[in-house]
Amino acid sequence: MTMLADTRFSNRRRALAAQLAALRIDTVLVTHLKHVRYLSNFSGSNGAVLLNKDLSATIATDGRYLTQIEEEVPDLEKVIATKAVDLELLSRITGPRRVAFEADFVSVKQLEALQEAAPEDITLVPISGVIEEIRLRKDPLELERLRGVAALASQAFEDMLAAGEVAAGRSERQVAADLEYRMRVLGAEHPSFDTIVASGPNSAKPHHGAGDRILEQGDLVTIDFGAHDRGFNSDMTRTLAIGQPDPFLKEIYDVVLAAQLAGVEASTPGTPLTDVDAAARDVINDAGYGEYFVHSTGHGIGLDVHEAPYASNRKGTSELEPGMTLTIEPGIYVPGRGGVRIEDTLIIREGAPEIITKVGKELRIV
Amino acid sequence: MTMLADTRFSNRRRALAAQLAALRIDTVLVTHLKHVRYLSNFSGSNGAVLLNKDLSATIATDGRYLTQIEEEVPDLEKVIATKAVDLELLSRITGPRRVAFEADFVSVKQLEALQEAAPEDITLVPISGVIEEIRLRKDPLELERLRGVAALASQAFEDMLAAGEVAAGRSERQVAADLEYRMRVLGAEHPSFDTIVASGPNSAKPHHGAGDRILEQGDLVTIDFGAHDRGFNSDMTRTLAIGQPDPFLKEIYDVVLAAQLAGVEASTPGTPLTDVDAAARDVINDAGYGEYFVHSTGHGIGLDVHEAPYASNRKGTSELEPGMTLTIEPGIYVPGRGGVRIEDTLIIREGAPEIITKVGKELRIV
Repeated sequence: MTMLADTRFSNRRRALAAQLAALRIDTVLVTHLKHVRYLSNFSGSNGAVLLNKDLSATIATDGRYLTQIEEEVPDLEKVIATKAVDLELLSRITGPRRVAFEADFVSVKQLEALQEAAPEDITLVPISGVIEEIRLRKDPLELERLRGVAALASQAFEDMLAAGEVAAGRSERQVAADLEYRMRVLGAEHPSFDTIVASGPNSAKPHHGAGDRILEQGDLVTIDFGAHDRGFNSDMTRTLAIGQPDPFLKEIYDVVLAAQLAGVEASTPGTPLTDVDAAARDVINDAGYGEYFVHSTGHGIGLDVHEAPYASNRKGTSELEPGMTLTIEPGIYVPGRGGVRIEDTLIIREGAPEIITKVGKELRIV
Repeated sequence: MTMLADTRFSNRRRALAAQLAALRIDTVLVTHLKHVRYLSNFSGSNGAVLLNKDLSATIATDGRYLTQIEEEVPDLEKVIATKAVDLELLSRITGPRRVAFEADFVSVKQLEALQEAAPEDITLVPISGVIEEIRLRKDPLELERLRGVAALASQAFEDMLAAGEVAAGRSERQVAADLEYRMRVLGAEHPSFDTIVASGPNSAKPHHGAGDRILEQGDLVTIDFGAHDRGFNSDMTRTLAIGQPDPFLKEIYDVVLAAQLAGVEASTPGTPLTDVDAAARDVINDAGYGEYFVHSTGHGIGLDVHEAPYASNRKGTSELEPGMTLTIEPGIYVPGRGGVRIEDTLIIREGAPEIITKVGKELRIV
């Protein structure tokens, strides 16, 4: 298992090194912690990786992680730093070099310190989006982790429903606490983001949290949540009904479900992201609710809850490719009356996508 | 209540404006979200504040937060941005100005965009630590919030013990889930950080998380956790015994408790932070366990779980002042045998500090 995992990490480093060659970079200093973990398997809270174009690499952390880094990173040279890990690694570079740094994550203050610490024959070169581009297409280890957290969150949701925890008389906050507890017990390190439980009129607010409102008969309740484990995230949404909903709410549910199914169906390799958005949006527009669908159709997910690709109606030329992830989450939000959102996470592959969210989408009345 | 809160936010802006005058800054662009909230009360996930030296100020967000920003920020000019909020605000500045930006939080990439967007007669000036310096001394609203989250976490811990949830046969993960659930139900938005439940041999690892190990008779169990609500955090640690601990573990508990009490006693205005650290550390050194106290004695807490001031044995000249917060958290970690950490959060005031962690520190046997 460890050998297999190591191959995967070295494959990621090889992909990065190939990009560097094209940019005439000799060495890259990786300081964004998610990227340090992505390239090395190190999960500590302080670390940096120096990767050379010949694939030799050094990782630095501090004394707290002495044992952990030996276990997690058997295959890289290790340094226990006595100063900031980025400065420690930079000071070890010899010879004239073009050294790249992550311009999206290095602060202006941090760059100043790097420039002061850099030997004279080193040129610091900003790079942006290079590792993100590699992350766009998930490798087998990432797909395994993403399926795992999506299945865990799905199980927690089903268990919560089976236990009758979404019911009239309970508060939004209580439902969120129950769901997060179930994810934690099933093995999540923490939720991927603050759980949304939006009931009754709150369901018409796409960014409602989970408050003190008590669920009532006739409410729709939108629950948007995710599980985090070992760096990876899940994201799903279901809208439930507390008792029979009025015909209007039932109607918008059916429209959103049809839009969601259309978005999923459109999610195939070669499809422009704008077309995926349009597939879902057209269903809602055609039903006359277009003005109430106030956000984009979906986003990629992996180390970040929201990452490329993005399925929106903004102009763009990017297309889906196998190995990408995408949420499909259309919604209708009618102020004062209620709202519906339904969200699955997909893995794009040849033919129909793999839906890793494992909960049915028919309207459930609890 | 709202009027009172507004006064507090404008007091913070006044304190910042006073610092700017000393740096010959005309306007500051605040982009770090915690600082945006600190200065304006806005809690959304996208926002920036432009504050002029005459105290006029503008806040920008996007269309998702149209209603929320009206409710949360009645007293500032508001802009719903159609591009990045920082660029939107920058483009509205007229006339020659020295405009400060937060060099610790603005990335190299973001600065590049700001420089491109800035009118020619604007000079961008990096500032660092200016708002953090103001945050060092908490105002009444902050102290109220900090007392609230500390009391909530304390209550959750007591309730968990009363329910018998820390017991032989249960896993570390299960105990962490129970505690986080109780904090959530009592009103926390989420834990301040991933809960530590370190049992038996794991208690000797200061940075252990909460894993699959089952608690056993004779274990010490160190539980380090906190609650987050409306931007503010708590942080506390208690070490419990599952049944009677062996005499060695009892001995190190007593040493850590004596060190903790000495650290609390030393936490008075005018005391150098190094002296606070020494007060706790000397007790552990004198008992012969100095090599097993591998971290510093404490840290401030507020918008960040770890923030200035820091009580460590590194040289420094800073002294405690009324209104600062400080954790006192000495520990002894003996590999293979077990460990103890005890942590309270204090508010520094004239005379003895206010201890806002509301749980007793005698060794509890559960």
